[in-house]
Amino acid sequence: MSVASSDHTNKNANNHASIITVGNAIVDVIAQASDDFITEQGMMKNAMNLIDADRATALYERIGPAIEVSGGSAANTAAGIALLGGHAGFIGKIGDDMLGRIFRHDINAIGVKSHLAAEEALQTACSYILVTPDKQRTMNTYLGASITLKPDDMNADAIAAADIVYIEGYLYDAPEGPACWDKIAGVAHAAGTKIAISLSDGWCVERHRQAMHQFVRDHCDMVLCNAEEARLMFNSDKDDAIRQLRQLVAEAVITDGGNGSIACAGDAIATITPDRDIPVMDTTGAGDLYAAGYLYARHQGADLNTAVNLATITASEVISHIGARPQADLIALASPHMPDHFFG
Amino acid sequence: MSVASSDHTNKNANNHASIITVGNAIVDVIAQASDDFITEQGMMKNAMNLIDADRATALYERIGPAIEVSGGSAANTAAGIALLGGHAGFIGKIGDDMLGRIFRHDINAIGVKSHLAAEEALQTACSYILVTPDKQRTMNTYLGASITLKPDDMNADAIAAADIVYIEGYLYDAPEGPACWDKIAGVAHAAGTKIAISLSDGWCVERHRQAMHQFVRDHCDMVLCNAEEARLMFNSDKDDAIRQLRQLVAEAVITDGGNGSIACAGDAIATITPDRDIPVMDTTGAGDLYAAGYLYARHQGADLNTAVNLATITASEVISHIGARPQADLIALASPHMPDHFFG
Repeated sequence: MSVASSDHTNKNANNHASIITVGNAIVDVIAQASDDFITEQGMMKNAMNLIDADRATALYERIGPAIEVSGGSAANTAAGIALLGGHAGFIGKIGDDMLGRIFRHDINAIGVKSHLAAEEALQTACSYILVTPDKQRTMNTYLGASITLKPDDMNADAIAAADIVYIEGYLYDAPEGPACWDKIAGVAHAAGTKIAISLSDGWCVERHRQAMHQFVRDHCDMVLCNAEEARLMFNSDKDDAIRQLRQLVAEAVITDGGNGSIACAGDAIATITPDRDIPVMDTTGAGDLYAAGYLYARHQGADLNTAVNLATITASEVISHIGARPQADLIALASPHMPDHFFG
Repeated sequence: MSVASSDHTNKNANNHASIITVGNAIVDVIAQASDDFITEQGMMKNAMNLIDADRATALYERIGPAIEVSGGSAANTAAGIALLGGHAGFIGKIGDDMLGRIFRHDINAIGVKSHLAAEEALQTACSYILVTPDKQRTMNTYLGASITLKPDDMNADAIAAADIVYIEGYLYDAPEGPACWDKIAGVAHAAGTKIAISLSDGWCVERHRQAMHQFVRDHCDMVLCNAEEARLMFNSDKDDAIRQLRQLVAEAVITDGGNGSIACAGDAIATITPDRDIPVMDTTGAGDLYAAGYLYARHQGADLNTAVNLATITASEVISHIGARPQADLIALASPHMPDHFFG
């Protein structure tokens, strides 16, 4: 087992995060929209569409009333880990503006140790997230300051001090994203920090398939993805993609929306099918919070079954309301379903 | 009946709003907080606390993760009226900043015709709203640009073209707030526009009791308030306060949280007790959306019973989630409970 074992020993992180996540620092602007609007605007539904500043301005004029709430895939995962009682950290980049102040406030206030580089020339990234009547989300992300992420922004001390570094695939969309991943891999390997990644998005996988595949093979201890991302990574059907992914990495976790999820580490496998009665308001953040529950549980030394169980609970919370950061007490929510003394 | 009658004839508003609301243009910053935190910070619980810029900065550093969503009492009411299919307008003042752009976008996107003056030297008003475990909200409002509201900002054409102008009591907290009210009264009386006001907040009533009392007596066709505001207005118990209010104004509507509400117009009285099973997440905006349902129904010529029924439905929607602007389709929600063809 790569990330945790029954006799797991983690670094004594002192003031450092045990699990540090790296990704785009984004404030979400969430509005409801019709399927027709998604089509008219030429968006790829249920995907993350990259947009530039002009498109962001034009789009904002056309969408409905919105709420603003801190997001960013890896940042959401860090937030979830912190809410579960874990020592979480986050590395990202913001602009010198109101959205940056909002992002910084929220990530710190939730208990995540943040390492936020600043880029004054560009505004903080924002994502216009359109929730359609089927409760799926279509994202339109203006990366702004986040696109200037550089290897120097990857805080080596924090990565070295952590037990796990978790990187979002989206990071590859920054020009120096691949160099950031390489920097992280170098630091992590030297320090004995495990590397987990998220494949993030089907189109993101298509854009960076070969490089991502190679990074997983050469550097990763764990991959989290959904079924579509796995299929696109291997240009294959779901079952074959999972088989290939398991050959490539020691621990693989594949989610498939309402169909549940599967986690594999060596020969061990755990599957779970979520309760169909969960009220879904907005699926934004479902994968991010799944990752939070899974990573937290595994870091605590939990087995795969416990990990997918906790992951499903944390993902279910975040889809029950608008926004990708939990609003309920995750520990209170999960405790009855966890082994005795799981949360200490 | 002052605002609507069975043979009601409204102005043909053309491109103008039929119901125009006037108030502070505020973006809400909503976080959860403990009762201890409210006490430690010396806030008046469940009330609107006015704060200055320094206090706003210091407070933001201490509160938990938040979401940003457009608010402002009268603006929320206009939003609700628009969502019910009414022609709503809003008059207020924003700064030249991100929060101002958010406010402007949201009020326009929801279908309200906005008349937003701009004050470049001050930032857009924001309210740090702390939701305690009992789901009550304690507001800490930095009025910013809104405090510079002047009589010239009160769009006379829009007020004259409307059938009803609805003013929030909070407006009195701006130095030229009372002058704004006088300007509105003058324009409204000359144009035959009915005047409705909200008493807004108990402490706001305490700050401006005499002036508000006089304004109601001299100028108002309708007053909406909660039981506490009524008590404080007349320094009396609830029943006596309602009696006195009915003597002062042609149409009075008094809400009392979970105990329901009462509407009185001349000899006609309607009361309603809401369903106790409504899931309450955040009471922010409850009074504002009650006003939206009530004003819309009365403007449509509905009787008091229909009006308090619709008001209770719209208020119930907004307390079922975080934020003071509705997220559900109000017409679909209310239609089954309204008279046939109510929504046309």
